[in-house]
Amino acid sequence: MLSFTGSRLDRADHVRADPERLAGYMNWKARLLALDGLMPSMNDDGRLSWGTLADAPEDAELVFLGLDEGKACFAAVPPRGDASPRMANPQLWSLMANLQPDDLALYGGARSIVDWHARHRFCAQCGGDTKLAKGGWQRDCTACGASHFPRTDPVTIMLVEYDGKLMLGRGLGWPEGSFSALAGFVEPGESIEEGVAREVFEESGVRVRDVTYVASQPWPFPSQLMIGCHSHADDDALTIDETEMAEINWYTRDEVKASLAGDGPFRAPPPHAIAHHLMHWWIHK
Amino acid sequence: MLSFTGSRLDRADHVRADPERLAGYMNWKARLLALDGLMPSMNDDGRLSWGTLADAPEDAELVFLGLDEGKACFAAVPPRGDASPRMANPQLWSLMANLQPDDLALYGGARSIVDWHARHRFCAQCGGDTKLAKGGWQRDCTACGASHFPRTDPVTIMLVEYDGKLMLGRGLGWPEGSFSALAGFVEPGESIEEGVAREVFEESGVRVRDVTYVASQPWPFPSQLMIGCHSHADDDALTIDETEMAEINWYTRDEVKASLAGDGPFRAPPPHAIAHHLMHWWIHK
Repeated sequence: MLSFTGSRLDRADHVRADPERLAGYMNWKARLLALDGLMPSMNDDGRLSWGTLADAPEDAELVFLGLDEGKACFAAVPPRGDASPRMANPQLWSLMANLQPDDLALYGGARSIVDWHARHRFCAQCGGDTKLAKGGWQRDCTACGASHFPRTDPVTIMLVEYDGKLMLGRGLGWPEGSFSALAGFVEPGESIEEGVAREVFEESGVRVRDVTYVASQPWPFPSQLMIGCHSHADDDALTIDETEMAEINWYTRDEVKASLAGDGPFRAPPPHAIAHHLMHWWIHK
Repeated sequence: MLSFTGSRLDRADHVRADPERLAGYMNWKARLLALDGLMPSMNDDGRLSWGTLADAPEDAELVFLGLDEGKACFAAVPPRGDASPRMANPQLWSLMANLQPDDLALYGGARSIVDWHARHRFCAQCGGDTKLAKGGWQRDCTACGASHFPRTDPVTIMLVEYDGKLMLGRGLGWPEGSFSALAGFVEPGESIEEGVAREVFEESGVRVRDVTYVASQPWPFPSQLMIGCHSHADDDALTIDETEMAEINWYTRDEVKASLAGDGPFRAPPPHAIAHHLMHWWIHK
């Protein structure tokens, strides 16, 4: 299963939209996800820690995450969000490595939404104050009345194949020897397939065709939707964009297989990353 | 080909990121897309109208759309954006029906990005003034320095099949007899496949499995990425969410075929909509 998927929460959209019903769930039985800023907190049994709504600061905004076996689950918006890059916090990565898959998915979704609130306290349209609405799935401007919705940013991440070899790159600033699939945000005005072709050409100078979808996963740093694709190149000649990439190489199936097993020519992405899953898919294809 | 795809512009990311190079393109040879607010304007030959940068108001912010056969193409941010629903402007729809596919894609992408600027003049993080950066592919806060990026909102739109029939719905407020595929925004913390399953269950009460990707297209009202999928239901018993849907029905292949030909039990979505394409895909599958 792909990381950050498989949350056990029922998002219960009908509750968010109904203020009376939502208020009815905000009682002593409700659970509050324990967060230290945006960091998760774990019990001795290795599960996510939960408290009650009484644990939230008095003026905290509360997001309704959904229902877990009928119990309402909330998270409080922290004072500050975090738009730093995905791998920035080693302590977070070691905590996440110990979470069960359903807890990891729940934490990831909760992190994305509370972080969005923390970084969107003002109205982009008029600069006025905004306040949380619809159980945290909206913010409304107190000045101009505009409604704002949580962001989910689609990102394509792609396998590029030529003559049985796979294109993998090392981004600027990545550790020596670390390689992964190229990736980039889908821009306004393009399809997934167009985004894949543009991004590969920008970063590697290679034209691709026959783009197909493989799998998707959410990535909560801060709130991407990773869209994993496969494509074919007609040529392996590289023109590397040195403002983004340190290196790009072509690797054989055996080299990718060995690297995923920890004994190959490059350091493969960690299992949490969809690139890891895509590489496994490719060596077994 | 899917509508709003196939723009002939080279987005030329290397130009955006290089202020000197960008300035070099902002000369008398540059073309300015003629827009009346957010409406396109057409020549006598039925193509999009273009002017020069001299046609832009003196204080207008300019977005670099890309290169068209080496010529730099820009659009000016209008005074106001437009977050109204997709079908709100009949005059726009009749203009768009007359655009060539590559012009329609170019207009759609330009519309999404200038509309985003018009509705994001302030910093969501601190309320300060923001100004256009990187040729219009970023806004920077003049107060706190935060960077903001154009939004692209992923939306799943899905065929749900049961026993050879297709589930189609009529949203609240849609004209009598108009039916299309169910759709909804992908939320933070879910994959495409999870978003499809949640949305179908919320709106129809039906559980789906075996979600597969079919096709994608941008939808510039204001800036969605439509992700078209297919899924199977295990049951056809409906529990309709009456806060969103007026009706949901199951239609046979012959009924869908007849409706697409304009002679069936429902009014099918227009060719510009990915739902139209998905239905064609399904009847020929």
